[in-house]
Amino acid sequence: MPTITAAQLAELLGGTLHGKAERLLSAVSTLESASPECVTFLANARYAALLDVTQAGVVLVAGGTRREKGDVIEVADPYSAFVRVLEYFHPAKEFVAGIHETASISADAHLGANITVGPQCVVEAGAQIGDNSVLEASVFVGRDSTIGKNCRIYPNSVIRHDSQLGDRVILHSGVVIGADGFGFAFEKTAYRKIPQVGIVVIEDDVEIGANTTVDRATIGETRIGQGTKIDNLVQIAHNVRLGKHCVVAAQAGISGSTVFGDYCRVGGQAGFVGHIKIGDGAAFGAQSGISRDVESGEVLSGSPGRPHGIWKRIEAALPRLPELLRRVKRLEDRLDIDVPNKESDRAR
Amino acid sequence: MPTITAAQLAELLGGTLHGKAERLLSAVSTLESASPECVTFLANARYAALLDVTQAGVVLVAGGTRREKGDVIEVADPYSAFVRVLEYFHPAKEFVAGIHETASISADAHLGANITVGPQCVVEAGAQIGDNSVLEASVFVGRDSTIGKNCRIYPNSVIRHDSQLGDRVILHSGVVIGADGFGFAFEKTAYRKIPQVGIVVIEDDVEIGANTTVDRATIGETRIGQGTKIDNLVQIAHNVRLGKHCVVAAQAGISGSTVFGDYCRVGGQAGFVGHIKIGDGAAFGAQSGISRDVESGEVLSGSPGRPHGIWKRIEAALPRLPELLRRVKRLEDRLDIDVPNKESDRAR
Amino acid sequence: MPTITAAQLAELLGGTLHGKAERLLSAVSTLESASPECVTFLANARYAALLDVTQAGVVLVAGGTRREKGDVIEVADPYSAFVRVLEYFHPAKEFVAGIHETASISADAHLGANITVGPQCVVEAGAQIGDNSVLEASVFVGRDSTIGKNCRIYPNSVIRHDSQLGDRVILHSGVVIGADGFGFAFEKTAYRKIPQVGIVVIEDDVEIGANTTVDRATIGETRIGQGTKIDNLVQIAHNVRLGKHCVVAAQAGISGSTVFGDYCRVGGQAGFVGHIKIGDGAAFGAQSGISRDVESGEVLSGSPGRPHGIWKRIEAALPRLPELLRRVKRLEDRLDIDVPNKESDRAR
Repeated sequence: MPTITAAQLAELLGGTLHGKAERLLSAVSTLESASPECVTFLANARYAALLDVTQAGVVLVAGGTRREKGDVIEVADPYSAFVRVLEYFHPAKEFVAGIHETASISADAHLGANITVGPQCVVEAGAQIGDNSVLEASVFVGRDSTIGKNCRIYPNSVIRHDSQLGDRVILHSGVVIGADGFGFAFEKTAYRKIPQVGIVVIEDDVEIGANTTVDRATIGETRIGQGTKIDNLVQIAHNVRLGKHCVVAAQAGISGSTVFGDYCRVGGQAGFVGHIKIGDGAAFGAQSGISRDVESGEVLSGSPGRPHGIWKRIEAALPRLPELLRRVKRLEDRLDIDVPNKESDRAR
Repeated sequence: MPTITAAQLAELLGGTLHGKAERLLSAVSTLESASPECVTFLANARYAALLDVTQAGVVLVAGGTRREKGDVIEVADPYSAFVRVLEYFHPAKEFVAGIHETASISADAHLGANITVGPQCVVEAGAQIGDNSVLEASVFVGRDSTIGKNCRIYPNSVIRHDSQLGDRVILHSGVVIGADGFGFAFEKTAYRKIPQVGIVVIEDDVEIGANTTVDRATIGETRIGQGTKIDNLVQIAHNVRLGKHCVVAAQAGISGSTVFGDYCRVGGQAGFVGHIKIGDGAAFGAQSGISRDVESGEVLSGSPGRPHGIWKRIEAALPRLPELLRRVKRLEDRLDIDVPNKESDRAR
Repeated sequence: MPTITAAQLAELLGGTLHGKAERLLSAVSTLESASPECVTFLANARYAALLDVTQAGVVLVAGGTRREKGDVIEVADPYSAFVRVLEYFHPAKEFVAGIHETASISADAHLGANITVGPQCVVEAGAQIGDNSVLEASVFVGRDSTIGKNCRIYPNSVIRHDSQLGDRVILHSGVVIGADGFGFAFEKTAYRKIPQVGIVVIEDDVEIGANTTVDRATIGETRIGQGTKIDNLVQIAHNVRLGKHCVVAAQAGISGSTVFGDYCRVGGQAGFVGHIKIGDGAAFGAQSGISRDVESGEVLSGSPGRPHGIWKRIEAALPRLPELLRRVKRLEDRLDIDVPNKESDRAR
């Protein structure tokens, strides 16, 4: 790993060093497990108490923060600065381009310059792999699919036929792009499969987490917008459209034909019914359940999803509901109100 | 792709053309993106406004619907008719039967007539593949498993040993059939694995979505009934039985030994505890949580699941709970009722 | 399969036979489908009625339980005893050690004694496989990962680079260990990927279910403690730590940097936000949603998670909320209380 002095690091980050300029740094670490040659950072107030016990050589901090003993570099945004430190100490691994001898590649595939195709991969006829892209082991690329430049496809992911991936797309292991949408017509006594003849389009700079599924469209396309990031085990159904620069946390699910704007944020395990429209910048709490159109900038929580403030007030009031039943009964008793049978029955 | 005139198409569908008989049609599309050579359909009232702006040559519609300018074919069920149009324009892809040279097939496997085994597949001893079935790339078929006729197994799916698949079964990529059930006995300080020695049986005409898991039984069998359709990322635990012609939406989970009747419908992300019985035709809302036996035809929503009408009334009343607390306090003040300490404490 | 007499079996289990000593037993079964040569068990009172109809030769029962006609063996814990019977009739399958000719193994991998590497596997440089471990078909082991002794890795699972697995670890099909954590810094208009340079550590005796994902740490490690059992389709995010002997049911999700103690139990589809601490022995209901630190031994249900008793009382009271609104209105009418506009508006 490279080494750097504290002074050089401060200069690289555009920050201000409070400490020993010539200190040699050679690794990154967490506050808890840092040793003196390590750089770490404090961005979350939950961990402030660790600042006085960490053994780190240097901690990246926001303006004004100091350690009782030990050095800091003040930066505008400690987390962003730390990302740069990570990139400095862990430059992207170089791949030796080449086609592994066990890969099964159609003679009719179109292979760009400087690509890597790992062992046991399968690339079908008409498929196209852009320059500098890397397919790690056991990746499947179906017929007539196109993969852009500088993509990274991790082991055991599947890209079915006619899918279109842009540049710098990252697919993690176990991702399935372009499986059939879940479409059936009920006819008398049984379900009849609806042919799923559409495609999946994944724009530039999208990253998709392990074992996530993005189904092909019934007709037309399922589309993931530029720069959108999707976590693990997420379900994206047929004909969904995600806008640009959205984030979708793990295990969320989006049903067929639902359309998102740009810069939306979806919490883990959230669910969306089909055929709804979500405006730009809308945000959704973990485990929320959304079954209506959503305006730009709305923030919904709960299932069914409600405006976050309303949801919080309901949740705060709920523990008092059992007591409220008793208090209303006492009021009725005081006023000699006879609760009609049907209701008092249920009330007991 | 094939072409057809509007008049021929109307005849094929048993519908009535209102428009130009000789119009040539050569593709299917959505209302939004259709061009004049396209057939599309209107089945969901949400999209009715598109009828007057679509460029489609012909739109399949329900009786009485017309376009301001443009042709329609009236049919009894536009969606079902459209399925037929899809089948007409996209006939199932012909596979060239044969065993790819990179597949690893035991000499003790039993291979039917006219089968396709794609690159990097593994078929173990005693496994049996029925006539006309297609295993795409990197499919694993464990020892003594049987696959019926005309099945389609997509890349990177796994069928572990002793599994039994019927005819016309479709498994999408990443499906895992027959992994061990989640069974452990706690003994003093640690969990002891319970051997999972049962099997999985999948009846005819079942389709299972990408990355779904169906665990083998502890003893006996886990069974998916004929014609049942399961979406992506669904969990089916050991010894579960699904009846015939059920549909299970994405990310639903069914715990061990729960038994479903026929024609049940399960919404996305719904969850079921183990050891319960679900009657024929029961239906469950998205994200519902079911922990009791369910009668035939019941419709449950919410978590814990309640009859859909009750659930809707509760959800409609919930936003008024915070206000209700204040209103009860006002009533108590008016009557000089002293809320006992314990309750008033909690009430503040 | 081996055979055993009822008397021998009683002795093996330390139980008391009530029935025919010389009865020959040769299989295990469920109560429903047992035939006279079968052993089965009754552990769950739900199934007690089956005791008088089962055809089983012998049923393992708790002290005092008898069948109307038919034999039993009384044991202290029928379920644990049955596990032993399963192990007796289904001894672990012997694997023929060896490297399949289609496996792609780096010359720089370190292979222990008596290991099995199945067809289409990929083992990269620096990877280490411990003695007696079995990699079934199409397993990927990335560079510099280590797998301990007596591990069992099922088809199509992925272990990315630098992961560390202890002894006797079981990974089911489709598991992905060490995919990148979901970490991005938002910079002006787009998300910038945070390099994920940490690792995953999986301690001895861990079992992980099909298609579950365990992400690598951003820095440091993601760790699964000794003896912990994880079901299918679970998400374990970057830098999570699970203690020893936890159980996590299917489709649960744990967000980044959350830390669990030992002996925790997590229900299916439960979700945890990031950066929280969970004490030893805490338990969580199915579909619960946890967003705060949790004390040792707490039992939480619901979303947001509440102490189980409080949650039960709220859920019991909820169906009466619509009626309560009407009753409060009646009290207000009786006292001529004018509900202020804002509230009465909402109340209608």
